Amino acid sequence: MTDPRAQIGTTGKRLSRRSMLAGAAAGVVAPAAIASLGGSAATAQGNSKGDSGKTRRITMYAEEFPDGNVGYGLAPGKASIPGPILEIWEGDTLEIDLVNNTDRRLSIHPHGVNYSVDSDGSPLNDSFNEPGETRTYIWSTTAPYKASGNMWMPGSAGYWHYHDHALGGAHGTEGLRKGLYGALIVRRKGDILPERQHTVVFNDMTINNKVAPHVPILEANLGERVEFIAIGHGNTFHTFHLHAHRWANNRTGILEGPKDPSQVVDNRDLNPGDSFGFQVIAGEGVGPGVWMYHCHVQFHSDGGMAGIFLVRNEDGSLPDGAQAALDRYHGHEHGGDHPHGH
Amino acid sequence: MTDPRAQIGTTGKRLSRRSMLAGAAAGVVAPAAIASLGGSAATAQGNSKGDSGKTRRITMYAEEFPDGNVGYGLAPGKASIPGPILEIWEGDTLEIDLVNNTDRRLSIHPHGVNYSVDSDGSPLNDSFNEPGETRTYIWSTTAPYKASGNMWMPGSAGYWHYHDHALGGAHGTEGLRKGLYGALIVRRKGDILPERQHTVVFNDMTINNKVAPHVPILEANLGERVEFIAIGHGNTFHTFHLHAHRWANNRTGILEGPKDPSQVVDNRDLNPGDSFGFQVIAGEGVGPGVWMYHCHVQFHSDGGMAGIFLVRNEDGSLPDGAQAALDRYHGHEHGGDHPHGH
Amino acid sequence: MTDPRAQIGTTGKRLSRRSMLAGAAAGVVAPAAIASLGGSAATAQGNSKGDSGKTRRITMYAEEFPDGNVGYGLAPGKASIPGPILEIWEGDTLEIDLVNNTDRRLSIHPHGVNYSVDSDGSPLNDSFNEPGETRTYIWSTTAPYKASGNMWMPGSAGYWHYHDHALGGAHGTEGLRKGLYGALIVRRKGDILPERQHTVVFNDMTINNKVAPHVPILEANLGERVEFIAIGHGNTFHTFHLHAHRWANNRTGILEGPKDPSQVVDNRDLNPGDSFGFQVIAGEGVGPGVWMYHCHVQFHSDGGMAGIFLVRNEDGSLPDGAQAALDRYHGHEHGGDHPHGH
Repeated sequence: MTDPRAQIGTTGKRLSRRSMLAGAAAGVVAPAAIASLGGSAATAQGNSKGDSGKTRRITMYAEEFPDGNVGYGLAPGKASIPGPILEIWEGDTLEIDLVNNTDRRLSIHPHGVNYSVDSDGSPLNDSFNEPGETRTYIWSTTAPYKASGNMWMPGSAGYWHYHDHALGGAHGTEGLRKGLYGALIVRRKGDILPERQHTVVFNDMTINNKVAPHVPILEANLGERVEFIAIGHGNTFHTFHLHAHRWANNRTGILEGPKDPSQVVDNRDLNPGDSFGFQVIAGEGVGPGVWMYHCHVQFHSDGGMAGIFLVRNEDGSLPDGAQAALDRYHGHEHGGDHPHGH
Repeated sequence: MTDPRAQIGTTGKRLSRRSMLAGAAAGVVAPAAIASLGGSAATAQGNSKGDSGKTRRITMYAEEFPDGNVGYGLAPGKASIPGPILEIWEGDTLEIDLVNNTDRRLSIHPHGVNYSVDSDGSPLNDSFNEPGETRTYIWSTTAPYKASGNMWMPGSAGYWHYHDHALGGAHGTEGLRKGLYGALIVRRKGDILPERQHTVVFNDMTINNKVAPHVPILEANLGERVEFIAIGHGNTFHTFHLHAHRWANNRTGILEGPKDPSQVVDNRDLNPGDSFGFQVIAGEGVGPGVWMYHCHVQFHSDGGMAGIFLVRNEDGSLPDGAQAALDRYHGHEHGGDHPHGH
Repeated sequence: MTDPRAQIGTTGKRLSRRSMLAGAAAGVVAPAAIASLGGSAATAQGNSKGDSGKTRRITMYAEEFPDGNVGYGLAPGKASIPGPILEIWEGDTLEIDLVNNTDRRLSIHPHGVNYSVDSDGSPLNDSFNEPGETRTYIWSTTAPYKASGNMWMPGSAGYWHYHDHALGGAHGTEGLRKGLYGALIVRRKGDILPERQHTVVFNDMTINNKVAPHVPILEANLGERVEFIAIGHGNTFHTFHLHAHRWANNRTGILEGPKDPSQVVDNRDLNPGDSFGFQVIAGEGVGPGVWMYHCHVQFHSDGGMAGIFLVRNEDGSLPDGAQAALDRYHGHEHGGDHPHGH
């Protein structure tokens, strides 16, 4: 149920990047095309032409796992940690019927989008689901608009996230600790669409509530356009580092033209409540292989905040040396500071 | 004296946003117009035409409160925590006569502006006020200028801050802990001016040296352009989150045209010595209501780092449900992790 | 050996800034010109015309110091903490023969550039030097390229860093603690070249593995273009603050034209694995003097994370008051929170 392969999706065919990019540029490839690869179920219903201004309605289920963790899912019995990637176009509205199948009060609270106090998801605004209760939360989005001179007020497009804000108290601290979180993407017309998507949540001293060597193996084939959505939660500070790939520290991770002044990074702060996203071409300029992603706070990576981004050969086969590296990763229980190395 | 309503100002009439924006675009609305709303006294003297290059002179007073905290003010007996918002145009010079009405050595040290070693405010440079002493600190500012090719050296415009750098040691650690800090805004010609201003300082485990439910209620009417200046101080890391509103993570929080690549955020790191500012249209797209702002580090929000941004109806009346939410906020002493919720 | 003056270089003549900038704009001033000032030895071999696409080969040596720390150097007996500044043009390839003159397994791992799994520097990929072993690591770089519409995939240009990833465990935690780190700069054609360079590494509770008053004095003459490369390592969060100077929070620290929306800062988060760089004109608008740079986390600066940026007069002489300030700095052992001030 928390198998990462279930969430990231591995059954979809690989799209031609050439046609994908052409389509994205023309704004005609729909998020629906991503859904089969990325588990982005919110986009599976309608909006196949990338039009903005549509209202989509989905049902989400909050469920407890046997180990006591709690997750969101798009169907009964399908909860996962992190929850499903919810993806809409700037201008869309998303109506979520949240079914609380647990015996605890909980809610869903989004970042980045518009919502009235009724959909705040906070006990402060009396906005939550009692055990067994179903409640509708409405999130809307908007494009940038001209404010004055050449200044524009920001729109909703971004790599955002959603999470509980009620389980265990005013701020959902217990709900977050147990896994009630997921990625929310609001795309702008013209944004390039990926072929793979991975959500990485640094939640206290875990990645997606797991520690090495049990952190999800994120996979792609050489040359695929892979999207990462990184989210921070909990009580500790973190920095997200990905080996051999980099991105622009801006809205999309891609440069808005050759004069975009954004810093390019491969390591970025990822603190509670923060999120960012980016796309890389898997293995570009570096080849396939077993690439680490980890928190760069040394005690955190040594303590198990380290996972694998496995870039396979273009045909999906394992590159030379990859199995040995995977075995090394799985061979240690905590990734720790061993005087004998590994 | 530390009543937040005194600091944020509630007596000024609400300006027409339409005329305000038109004025800002033309650069003819002076910061003086803000002073009556925002307590921005530094701008009350002169520069009513938004010209740059003026020298302004103010007197500030450092005073101890009965509870042992210490603050800056623009008149004797008027100290507040945070201190007054000081606001100038890029190109201006600000001369501050600091009167030390306490029995401790202290100083004032700015971020973002130019000053000689005499105005550094540090014991290292022998730049501080002994008890009872008055000392002049001079801060100047400058516009960007061309460096080479199309590259420009940065100017002074920004959301900055000032603070003590001498009380209790080389770095003013005790002065900061006790409240010697405030916002400093340097505006560029053409910047949009707000109708309301609020300073939010995450200082160790407090907001403006207070914890919930005693954190200031920040107020605005629906549709007003509200400016937040967020500042970090102390010894712990924080993330500032505002419900139902967002901003661009750039110089002004507003986009420099539709191609501005800046990430739009509603949660941002706010660590010691850092500051940023932004403007929102209160309740835009979400309606009036009782909106939380809080540190998104869970133990911090649970521990009391949570306040209220109260967006009233356009006519200033309380929206439906707002009183109940305010009562909930005031009903708990620490905002903590209650198994019973709220 | 860890004398900062050895690393920053003090023997080079001061270049005319006017000719420097003109040259940089035309892309004809080579990094080789910097090498004598900045210790940027990687650039001393070839590429005197600033062409991109060259392959450079250097040898680096890892060596243990008598105090147990470990450093990288460009010749036997020349290791330093931080290691030498490695500097290349976007498009170049750098081949490093790393000689391990210690009795511990170690490696070199870069940020920001391309490398195959063989050059990952990680035990995960069986990429490290056993004691006494020499191993070649290859780093390549690439320019941005058009992705779709007006979007461009990021290039390699940036202020990056390199560090051990194998000494003491999977993540090089012991190697980092002991000093195996340094700056890596990848420049884009047209980037402005500095006259001085300083590397500042916040490594746990130290600056370059030292604490006040033993932190390096960084020097420049009034009006020189000085480049700082700031790097974070270890286990604690930090904020880097420089008095009386500021920079844009973007790729270069300089604005990409007058409409560049980047926030201008004088204080920036500097957490483990992160790095950034910027250039200032020493003392511009503020005059010469003894300027502090320090971590703005109060307990960190009080605990010794504070150094001096000494801006001399244009002729290299000490400005008035500077010696007294230097004496104050050297007179206290920890920069602490003294009730008597300084």
